Amino acid sequence: MAREITPRSENYSQWYNDIVKKAGLAEHSAVRGCMVIKPYGFAIWEKMQAQLDKMFKESGHVNAYFPLFIPKSFLSKEADHVEGFAKECAVVTHYRLKQDPNGQGVVVDPEARLEEELIVRPTSETIIWNTYRDWINSYRDLPLLINQWANVVRWEMRTRLFLRTAEFLWQEGHTAHATEAEAVEETRRMQGIYASFAEDFMAMPVIQGVKTENERFAGAVDTYTIEALMQDGRALQAGTSHFLGQNFAKAFDVKYLNQNNKEEFVWATSWGVSTRLMGGLIMTHSDDDGLVLPPKLAPIQVVIVPIPKPGPEIAEVADKIAAELRSEGITVKIDDDAKKRPGFKFAEYEMQGIPVRIGIGKRDLEKNQIEIARRDTKEKFQVSLDQGVATVVELMEDIQKNLWNKAVDYRATHWTVADDWDAFVRALDEKGGFVSAHWDGTRETEVKIKEMTKATIRCIPNGQPKEDGLCILTGKKSSRRVLFARAY
Amino acid sequence: MAREITPRSENYSQWYNDIVKKAGLAEHSAVRGCMVIKPYGFAIWEKMQAQLDKMFKESGHVNAYFPLFIPKSFLSKEADHVEGFAKECAVVTHYRLKQDPNGQGVVVDPEARLEEELIVRPTSETIIWNTYRDWINSYRDLPLLINQWANVVRWEMRTRLFLRTAEFLWQEGHTAHATEAEAVEETRRMQGIYASFAEDFMAMPVIQGVKTENERFAGAVDTYTIEALMQDGRALQAGTSHFLGQNFAKAFDVKYLNQNNKEEFVWATSWGVSTRLMGGLIMTHSDDDGLVLPPKLAPIQVVIVPIPKPGPEIAEVADKIAAELRSEGITVKIDDDAKKRPGFKFAEYEMQGIPVRIGIGKRDLEKNQIEIARRDTKEKFQVSLDQGVATVVELMEDIQKNLWNKAVDYRATHWTVADDWDAFVRALDEKGGFVSAHWDGTRETEVKIKEMTKATIRCIPNGQPKEDGLCILTGKKSSRRVLFARAY
Repeated sequence: MAREITPRSENYSQWYNDIVKKAGLAEHSAVRGCMVIKPYGFAIWEKMQAQLDKMFKESGHVNAYFPLFIPKSFLSKEADHVEGFAKECAVVTHYRLKQDPNGQGVVVDPEARLEEELIVRPTSETIIWNTYRDWINSYRDLPLLINQWANVVRWEMRTRLFLRTAEFLWQEGHTAHATEAEAVEETRRMQGIYASFAEDFMAMPVIQGVKTENERFAGAVDTYTIEALMQDGRALQAGTSHFLGQNFAKAFDVKYLNQNNKEEFVWATSWGVSTRLMGGLIMTHSDDDGLVLPPKLAPIQVVIVPIPKPGPEIAEVADKIAAELRSEGITVKIDDDAKKRPGFKFAEYEMQGIPVRIGIGKRDLEKNQIEIARRDTKEKFQVSLDQGVATVVELMEDIQKNLWNKAVDYRATHWTVADDWDAFVRALDEKGGFVSAHWDGTRETEVKIKEMTKATIRCIPNGQPKEDGLCILTGKKSSRRVLFARAY
Repeated sequence: MAREITPRSENYSQWYNDIVKKAGLAEHSAVRGCMVIKPYGFAIWEKMQAQLDKMFKESGHVNAYFPLFIPKSFLSKEADHVEGFAKECAVVTHYRLKQDPNGQGVVVDPEARLEEELIVRPTSETIIWNTYRDWINSYRDLPLLINQWANVVRWEMRTRLFLRTAEFLWQEGHTAHATEAEAVEETRRMQGIYASFAEDFMAMPVIQGVKTENERFAGAVDTYTIEALMQDGRALQAGTSHFLGQNFAKAFDVKYLNQNNKEEFVWATSWGVSTRLMGGLIMTHSDDDGLVLPPKLAPIQVVIVPIPKPGPEIAEVADKIAAELRSEGITVKIDDDAKKRPGFKFAEYEMQGIPVRIGIGKRDLEKNQIEIARRDTKEKFQVSLDQGVATVVELMEDIQKNLWNKAVDYRATHWTVADDWDAFVRALDEKGGFVSAHWDGTRETEVKIKEMTKATIRCIPNGQPKEDGLCILTGKKSSRRVLFARAY
């Protein structure tokens, strides 16, 4: 009943599109590169948001909201930043339309031209640091630990639902600190929080590391990243946390009086995850029958389907089980829609990745049992009525753990230590996944490797030990391995 | 200790600005008309959002997300709609910047001109109904009950923090129905939900009614509204719910097959409340010492201030009370910052409108008591330690109720039934508030009254009885009173 999903083995990219579409997660809109996040997709995003927001608040951050627009001149104030973002900006030039004097519809009113163009934020460092100048005077105002949930726009030429869209939803943290050490600590803390979220909630193992200069955020001193591995062997950058040094403080003249009454520039971090995580979630766990969701992020964790027709007794049992599950904090849907056949419903919920399905039929009920089906393994089994709730409660943990283990196994079998160019290329071509290799540390070599293999340095893993070796491309000396992969 | 707040009696508008600024709620940004919502202001908005979102979901709605941009041609498809919104649009014309060939900074790349300009959404009926065309085929797809939380932009010339800004945050519900009756019922249901939220949570009494044609949403058949009264006697439109008839279905060709297999146009509603509610909340309850918040929407409901220095025992008592309050679901902050004097803290929390302040001093503690101060009445009193928590729990309800009663009283004393022009003008000028009067039902008279008095018809209240009378301006026959006020 896997209605029209292209198998991964046949066309991975089409498989992804099929799932996004058929599970009702998102679709392309009439506006080039912008997506519509459909209700079911948005419900998953809301679960992710709620958990992340909780983790941010527990670590001392507060939310705020800054303008959608950035004056054009702000972008130029940090040299690397403008270099990185100017090429893909949506630019507002006018503030009024008028009736077309020559016919139908409306046209831009040429008289309503803005003196300075406004950029739709691609990220908010500039407008926020321009604001922080007024908020920060003394060491008493620091640290400033602010996050915002917002939409941003980057005019991407090639877009894919969730993974790369012109408009996307994200959160962006922007913190200000008195010392370099404190800012670096914050950058790392947020990397750690992102990793915990990815692993404990998304059941998606990630490598924590630092980016090379070439892959750094435009304006950052260091970019910390979490890197996941998708089922086609390509890596996905799932979240980044930037140590910005004093770059933005200098660009926007943000100073504070320290305890010795001396003026100093403020130290900064920024960090973000986006709706791109949805892409990671989908690709980490799903199979050829549709979406697979870890219970912790499933908007509906259990669906109960009375079979074949809900007699009064069956309905009663369904209600009772639902009530008991809900009192355990589990989200339950009862689908007693008589217009659809159970088989149709089963396929539907399989497609949507509901972790557990409970079937309640007359024959089972006569034997005082119900049927439980888990989405991850496709196992089905009967349990006695009085064991139903306890079984499902346990399954929530089992399924979460099983998805995690499967993803960890996948990564372990798609991880190669390569010591020469042939082994490096073979690993990328035959197996995909991460390749740990020596690199001479130059930008030139990094770019060349990318041109030749499409693989990029995903990161220098945290705690990667020093180890003498030779660069796989140039044969020059290297003191440490880095992690390569082809990536989204 | 009301540091630099302008009294209401002196300059109401400045009083409002002072509170918004000094309580740390919001400020103007570097972008004309756009505000920064500061952390404390945003925390209040988050409480409002969470409650509204809960009410929407309990009434069967789901969230989704639609694009920020609307193709220019979409706006023109509904004639009234474009008329209402074209004049105040932010228009994106280009998608790239480049280095200025003549010098510093970046300029718009003339080669990156969009074929069709994009409008930053002022409201999303057009893009959403363009999407619904693909989502709705049969009566089985209806009703569609979708909400989105989003930012929107209307290029307002005169802006005021929260009350009228170029960019604001809001939710917009967009529902699709098979029948007119069902859509009208939904429109009214949402008006009712908005009224419940305003009254039960904001403690802000509202009049529910329907707008005249002149004040209707651009593209609506009927606009239902909730109207509140501020302390300067001006009305505030706090939320609107629109019955859109088949206007948008026809403009975007959205039809469905009914149960008899016949094609029909779909019926629509839309409804929204925005960060404007923050303005209403501030102006309904605050006083010359700062913000006053109803406990149900206060991010911090109780602040505990140990006096004058937290000895170990005082700190212990503070922790114990805080823990007990938290277990009652109350949000508590302990402020044991030794760098600030209690008097300074008291003024600060008064300014921020924290509903209850608990002082714990050595002398009180020796008598086994603590001091409780309520923000709304400014009363202070001692209670015995073991009665502290119960007292505060009770106060949460008392304060909520007291604020409600005060606001209801204010409205009752600022409500005039006027039967002739003199009484009408006198009521507006001397007392302000709502004036219930007869009107001849014509747009012309409505506009004239506005020109002469600045008062507008806020609504025809729901259930307003028929009553013969004469229009206060023209003396023509009228069959029902309407509600006038000067408004924000």
